[in-house]
Amino acid sequence: MAEHISKQFDMELETIRTRVLQMGGLVEQQILSAVDALLAGDIEKLDKVIAEDALVNAMEVTIDDDCLHIIARRQPAASDLRIVFTVIKVITDLERIGDEAKKIARMGKTIYQSERYQMPRFREIEKMAEVALGMLRRALDAFARLDTSAALELAEADQELDEDFAAELRQLITFMMEDPRTISMSIDTLFISKAIERIGDHATNISEYVVYLVKGKDIRHTTLETKKRETLG
Amino acid sequence: MAEHISKQFDMELETIRTRVLQMGGLVEQQILSAVDALLAGDIEKLDKVIAEDALVNAMEVTIDDDCLHIIARRQPAASDLRIVFTVIKVITDLERIGDEAKKIARMGKTIYQSERYQMPRFREIEKMAEVALGMLRRALDAFARLDTSAALELAEADQELDEDFAAELRQLITFMMEDPRTISMSIDTLFISKAIERIGDHATNISEYVVYLVKGKDIRHTTLETKKRETLG
Repeated sequence: MAEHISKQFDMELETIRTRVLQMGGLVEQQILSAVDALLAGDIEKLDKVIAEDALVNAMEVTIDDDCLHIIARRQPAASDLRIVFTVIKVITDLERIGDEAKKIARMGKTIYQSERYQMPRFREIEKMAEVALGMLRRALDAFARLDTSAALELAEADQELDEDFAAELRQLITFMMEDPRTISMSIDTLFISKAIERIGDHATNISEYVVYLVKGKDIRHTTLETKKRETLG
Repeated sequence: MAEHISKQFDMELETIRTRVLQMGGLVEQQILSAVDALLAGDIEKLDKVIAEDALVNAMEVTIDDDCLHIIARRQPAASDLRIVFTVIKVITDLERIGDEAKKIARMGKTIYQSERYQMPRFREIEKMAEVALGMLRRALDAFARLDTSAALELAEADQELDEDFAAELRQLITFMMEDPRTISMSIDTLFISKAIERIGDHATNISEYVVYLVKGKDIRHTTLETKKRETLG
C-alpha cells in the first residue's frame, strides 16, 4: 500500500516536471516565432505571438496550482519538496521569458507600422536571439536531466550575451548620431535586444535552480568562481 | 500540546511575514537612495546602493530557506500553505525590485562619469519614482494587512506609470533629435525610467499575490474588469 502511494506520488511529480517542459517548449516557440516574424516583417505572426502569451500565463497558474495541491495532499519530505519548490521558481522565470517574447513582438509591430527612413537592421538581434534560445534550451535540458553543469556554462554565456548587448547599444548610438531620423527605430531595436538579453538572465536563473534541486545548494547571486566550485565539486 | 505546537507554528509564520516586510523596507530604501543619489549626483551613495543589493539577495535566499523548512517540518494545510507560497512569490518580486534599484544606480554612475554636453534632466524620473515608491509601499502594506483592495488600485496606478514611461520616451526622442550629442545620456535616462516602470509591475504582482493569499483566487494575468470583480466581490 505504502509503495502504491509512493508510486502514485512519483507519477504526480513526473507529470508536473513534464508540464514544466511543455511550458518551456511553448516559451521557446514563442521566442522563435517572435524573432522569425520580426526578421520577416510578418505582422500576422507577431500578433499571434502577442495573443498566445495568454497560454504561457495560463500554464504558470495551472502548474502553481498543481504544486500547491501536491504539497497539501502528499506533504512531501525534503528532496521531493525541493522538486516542487524548484518548479515554482522555474515557471516564474519561464513566464517572464514569455513576457519578453511578447515585448519583442510588440516592438516589431511598432517598427513595421511606423514611418521608416530605412530598413531596420536586425543582424545583431538575430545573432543574440540564437544565443539566448540556445541558453533556454540548455536550461530546460538541464532541468529535464538534472544536469548541474549547465549553470556554469550559462553563467559564462550570459556574460557574453551582456557584452553583445553592450556592443549593440554602442552601434545603435552611432547610427542615431549619424542619422537622427533613425532614432525612433533604433530605440525600438534597442528594447528588442534588451528583451533578448533578459531571456539569457532568466535561462541562467533556471539552471541555478537545477543546481539547488540536485545539490541543495543555493548558488543564486554568487560569483562565477563559487558557481564553478559548487557545480563541479 | 496540539495547541502549543499550533501557537509555535503561528509564531513561525509571523516571523516569516515580518522578514518579508523587512526585506520590503530594505528594497524601498534602496530605490529611495538610488533616486536621491541620482538627483544629487552623489557617486558614493550610488556605489552604496550597488553594494547593498547583495543584502537584498541574501534576504531572498534566507526567506526561501525558511519557507522550505516550515513546509517540511510543519506540513501546513491549505490556508497556511498559501501564506508560504505567497511569501515565496512575493520575495521573488522584491528581489527583482532590488535589481532595478541597482540598475538605476549603475546608470546614474554612467551618466555622471561620462563626458556631458548638458546637465541631465530628471524631472520626469523624479515624478515616476514617487509613483513607483508609492505603489511599492501600498503593496507591502496590503501584504501586512491582508488588504485585497490594493490590487485594483495598483493595476490602475500601473497603467498610469506605463503612460508616464511612454511620455518620457517621446520626450527623450525629441531631445535626441534636436541635439544628437545628448543621445548617450538620453538612452541612460531612458533605461532609468524603464527600471522605474518595472518597479511598478513588480509592486502590482505583489498586490495580486495578496488577493490569492486572502481569497484563494489567482488574478494574475487577468483584465482590470476581472480584478475588480474578484477583489471587491
